[in-house]
Amino acid sequence: MNVPQPAILGRDATIGILGGGQLGRMLAQAAGRLGLKCHVYAPETDSPAFDVVRRSTCADYADEEALDRFARDVDVVTYEFENVPAHAASFLAARVPVLPDAKVLAVTQDRLAEKTFLADLRIAAARFVTVGHGDELAPALEEIGRPAVLKTRRFGYDGKGQALIRDGADLAEVWREVGGQPCVLEALVPFEREVSVIAARGLDGRTAAFDVAENEHRDHILKTTRVPAAIGPDVAAAAREIAETIAKAFAYVGVFAVEMFVVREAAREALLVNEIAPRVHNSGHWTTDGASVSQFEQHIRAIAGWPLAIPLRRGRIEMINLIGDEVEDAATWLDEPGASVHLYGKRSIRPGRKMGHVTRVFREE
Amino acid sequence: MNVPQPAILGRDATIGILGGGQLGRMLAQAAGRLGLKCHVYAPETDSPAFDVVRRSTCADYADEEALDRFARDVDVVTYEFENVPAHAASFLAARVPVLPDAKVLAVTQDRLAEKTFLADLRIAAARFVTVGHGDELAPALEEIGRPAVLKTRRFGYDGKGQALIRDGADLAEVWREVGGQPCVLEALVPFEREVSVIAARGLDGRTAAFDVAENEHRDHILKTTRVPAAIGPDVAAAAREIAETIAKAFAYVGVFAVEMFVVREAAREALLVNEIAPRVHNSGHWTTDGASVSQFEQHIRAIAGWPLAIPLRRGRIEMINLIGDEVEDAATWLDEPGASVHLYGKRSIRPGRKMGHVTRVFREE
Repeated sequence: MNVPQPAILGRDATIGILGGGQLGRMLAQAAGRLGLKCHVYAPETDSPAFDVVRRSTCADYADEEALDRFARDVDVVTYEFENVPAHAASFLAARVPVLPDAKVLAVTQDRLAEKTFLADLRIAAARFVTVGHGDELAPALEEIGRPAVLKTRRFGYDGKGQALIRDGADLAEVWREVGGQPCVLEALVPFEREVSVIAARGLDGRTAAFDVAENEHRDHILKTTRVPAAIGPDVAAAAREIAETIAKAFAYVGVFAVEMFVVREAAREALLVNEIAPRVHNSGHWTTDGASVSQFEQHIRAIAGWPLAIPLRRGRIEMINLIGDEVEDAATWLDEPGASVHLYGKRSIRPGRKMGHVTRVFREE
Repeated sequence: MNVPQPAILGRDATIGILGGGQLGRMLAQAAGRLGLKCHVYAPETDSPAFDVVRRSTCADYADEEALDRFARDVDVVTYEFENVPAHAASFLAARVPVLPDAKVLAVTQDRLAEKTFLADLRIAAARFVTVGHGDELAPALEEIGRPAVLKTRRFGYDGKGQALIRDGADLAEVWREVGGQPCVLEALVPFEREVSVIAARGLDGRTAAFDVAENEHRDHILKTTRVPAAIGPDVAAAAREIAETIAKAFAYVGVFAVEMFVVREAAREALLVNEIAPRVHNSGHWTTDGASVSQFEQHIRAIAGWPLAIPLRRGRIEMINLIGDEVEDAATWLDEPGASVHLYGKRSIRPGRKMGHVTRVFREE
């Protein structure tokens, strides 16, 4: 079968977006700035991205009839989340270019495949062993030591599908906690800070990375991003180089994020990759107000075959997520000089739900 | 009849926008950033604003049934153009708050009313006399002198409905040219530069003006805006004060633009107001990339009863309109470091049609 190949899109093209959350919404908004049309496909009726596009499909990812109609209506398909069902991705890819490529999903949907991919590229990550069954957990812990983190191979995000194992933990209980599914057991990394690189690779093979961001989590959910990260120039350059290596290895097209831990090895800082997200990323939200091009526009440029922009940072940046009822603070933030408030148009407030974010740009001395 | 009064809207509100051009589109995009929903009402099937909202009505402004449905679906109505038919405005205003108020439209839709309004506020403008009939033109010219500009009282924009009268002009021909409708005859202003102030007034009565912009027209259409304008601080302060005076006199809610001529009187610069636009304005497009808040978001904040932002400028700015087939240069602009490209998603290219714009932000020394 001939698989449709990515192309340079015209001004009149339509971008198909799988997933209707805030990332899909902000991708659609960026496409709109560039005059491109969007069609959002998502199963949830109250998807925030539906509100900012003319065309949308509310259907399950297994609905081939809906997928087929969607594919006919768009010039390229992209996605806002890495857990796109493999069948939907391949069904669409047979009909319309899907970017980033479905093979990227196959790797990043599986922690074991991702860790193997990184190891093949000689990119450092936390030590790990696989745990296929509950009875493999104890010997795995012998090898890795404690504390360790057990992570499901699939469908983890915002700390879901993870369990921290300390001394005295009840292993049967831990195994139930992660749903008794195939896992990897990682050594807990005693990191100094968490950083991420948001980078893009264009259809022409050129890459462009944003400045390294430093992230602070609360209850496993990103709370604050600060840019630039408080790391030395060598480590920053190394972080960006890791992103570039990954982009090239995948022949990636679009924006992606690499989350890394900064650890202290003897006197110097070193990087361990934690995770690759094949999509725009919460830790890149600062770019909308804090850089000359946003991660969202950069992604749209890439998948449209348009040239990437060279991102110029506008100052020292702080991005704060508004989580759950923190969205009620929006009124205060609207009054804060220089603060840019973004709300996602989500009706119901739930604990841990990302409702919006605020970006503050400070003049750099 | 009880007229609905403006209120502070909740996070879940829907903004109704009359007019589906690029201004309506960018208003909807700004509302989307703030999590607000939009419903765009416009008669043209290919309205660019339709593409960036979920809900739209394609109907004539005289269609009361459609207007009624629209009014029931939204929490406030605003508009992207000053020529909203008076009947549509009053029909809607009886059902839902319309901001800016319809009385502002009544003044700004009629050059004579506008000039009278300015004169009452002792704001300087070009000398003028009214010309109700063709046979009043010759005596009017005697009074004003030549060169003079004959402008229709209503429905003028981008140089339409205007005729320049020099020595030897055929007055009957000129009168035909403007459609033989009620006009004002203005002395041609020998201006040094054209500037504009984009300002906003909130529901709480507070005002905020952006820095004065300098505008360059080509064939009566705005081509380039540069900020700050090359005028002294006293003149800049005077320009902003004029805008504030106008805002207060109207008890205005929303964003508006005041176009002014800078003329040299003896050794000093003076300002003559050319026109008030009761809406977001092309000469304020630079704010999206060049300021901490855009004119579009500022307008949405105002009509939603939310606090205005204090606009901070990000540097020295240049905004270039892409007119007609200049949109084909977009690819070149996409490659220009630091340039932000905005395309409006208009399918057909026509001479004089605004297709997009580019903003460049330069670091200020």
